[in-house]
Amino acid sequence: MAPVSIEDADDPRIAEFRSIRERDLTGREGRFIAEGTVVLRMLAAAHGSGGDFLTEKILLLENRVAGLSEILEGFPADIPVYVASAAVLDQIAGFHLHRGVLALGRRRQERGASELIARLPEKALVVAAFGISNHDNIGSIFRNAAAFGADAVLLDESCCDPLYRKALRVSVGSVLSVPYTRHGTMSDILAVLMANGFAVWGLSPTGFVEIREVPASDRMVLITGTEGEGLPAEVLTRIRSARIAQAPGLDSLNAATATGIALYEIAMAQGRL
Amino acid sequence: MAPVSIEDADDPRIAEFRSIRERDLTGREGRFIAEGTVVLRMLAAAHGSGGDFLTEKILLLENRVAGLSEILEGFPADIPVYVASAAVLDQIAGFHLHRGVLALGRRRQERGASELIARLPEKALVVAAFGISNHDNIGSIFRNAAAFGADAVLLDESCCDPLYRKALRVSVGSVLSVPYTRHGTMSDILAVLMANGFAVWGLSPTGFVEIREVPASDRMVLITGTEGEGLPAEVLTRIRSARIAQAPGLDSLNAATATGIALYEIAMAQGRL
Repeated sequence: MAPVSIEDADDPRIAEFRSIRERDLTGREGRFIAEGTVVLRMLAAAHGSGGDFLTEKILLLENRVAGLSEILEGFPADIPVYVASAAVLDQIAGFHLHRGVLALGRRRQERGASELIARLPEKALVVAAFGISNHDNIGSIFRNAAAFGADAVLLDESCCDPLYRKALRVSVGSVLSVPYTRHGTMSDILAVLMANGFAVWGLSPTGFVEIREVPASDRMVLITGTEGEGLPAEVLTRIRSARIAQAPGLDSLNAATATGIALYEIAMAQGRL
Repeated sequence: MAPVSIEDADDPRIAEFRSIRERDLTGREGRFIAEGTVVLRMLAAAHGSGGDFLTEKILLLENRVAGLSEILEGFPADIPVYVASAAVLDQIAGFHLHRGVLALGRRRQERGASELIARLPEKALVVAAFGISNHDNIGSIFRNAAAFGADAVLLDESCCDPLYRKALRVSVGSVLSVPYTRHGTMSDILAVLMANGFAVWGLSPTGFVEIREVPASDRMVLITGTEGEGLPAEVLTRIRSARIAQAPGLDSLNAATATGIALYEIAMAQGRL
């Protein structure tokens, strides 16, 4: 479709992009805002793969259109593309949007953990995360999961929404490529994993096995908890725990880095990379 | 010293804490602002170890003093501690300072790379970083260096200042505990390292050796470059390069995570952890 010029920030056709920051904090019924070129490209790819995500509309800074033509061709032809001047765009978004690239996406109906696991191959690597309330950390879990070829991410219902604009950006769009579910409790998810033959590993400073020495099995899951507190004792008693050796007296790794190290080791052990 | 109450944001005794964010952008002649409990504790420890850092003054939210008494006892008794109400403190800082913990530190004269290396033990692990302009990335390099027991960090003169408030916070104060220098060019630093018997390793998607298989040597240095661009070709031709295996088609790791994985592997190979 030829881009449609928006002259008025109150135009109802781009209402979903208004005051984005405030809307970040409220539910959107499965809709989300994709921001920036990298995430837009992943959203186009999600269409191509017939996956879990649709695009409803796109809003661009007018001088970005030409440079994005290759990505825009990746979307179905009937998706409206709106363009605006910098002044109108900033007025719509409610802040200075220097990237000038926004899209409104929608997630199709979400699968539960059981259904997601039923679709996995016999050899599988899964990441599960419980109680992650920080959007940076959620985003980085997806980024690492994609980098090391994990098949799925399982979030419990207490995790924050990975489709939140900032989480999506930190994930470099991987939330749109790695199959995931955010549903049920920690116990529900552990029960499904164990019933499906997964070796369940978590990180803990007191873990029994150095992460580099974790034995491979066909189906493995890495559980990640919150930074600072780590995994609750009730989880650690039910799973196998690994440690990442660190300098004496320190347990200082950033949660994203710790997850990255553990996923690298497990993926290497499984011979996936 | 008994805390001194500050009633007026214009009080000259706390002038260095005024409008912190704007001052972040300007030079401070070796002075820096430490923010938050974690960084304050590291600053106290730096005093105790007779190291590279001094504290000039401390400014606290009045209701934080009691909870911090243990940390405050770690500072020399003649360092002034100022306290203020939330309203006055926010007025001083120029924004809402919910942590309520600030200190003004000063770095003693900086050593050059040669002098720093001359002080290292025979078995050593060093991190060198070139052209890192992002404060988050600089902070995370120090955090990872501390976690995996690196002996020193060498920054070239084009890196941003690790004593910048945000870098210091992201490092969880490790900038104050890991010896470092920020001086000279990339070429100067590589020359000093090679002259001192270091095996010089860098990360590259086209690296010859998987990072897990890097052979140990007594003196090793990991070179990290900028996210996105990575190390320049002129550096890669002079050093040994390792790769971190990733899912096909991706080179998606965050710079901090990549450095964390590489340091973990090298430190394990050296038997340091």
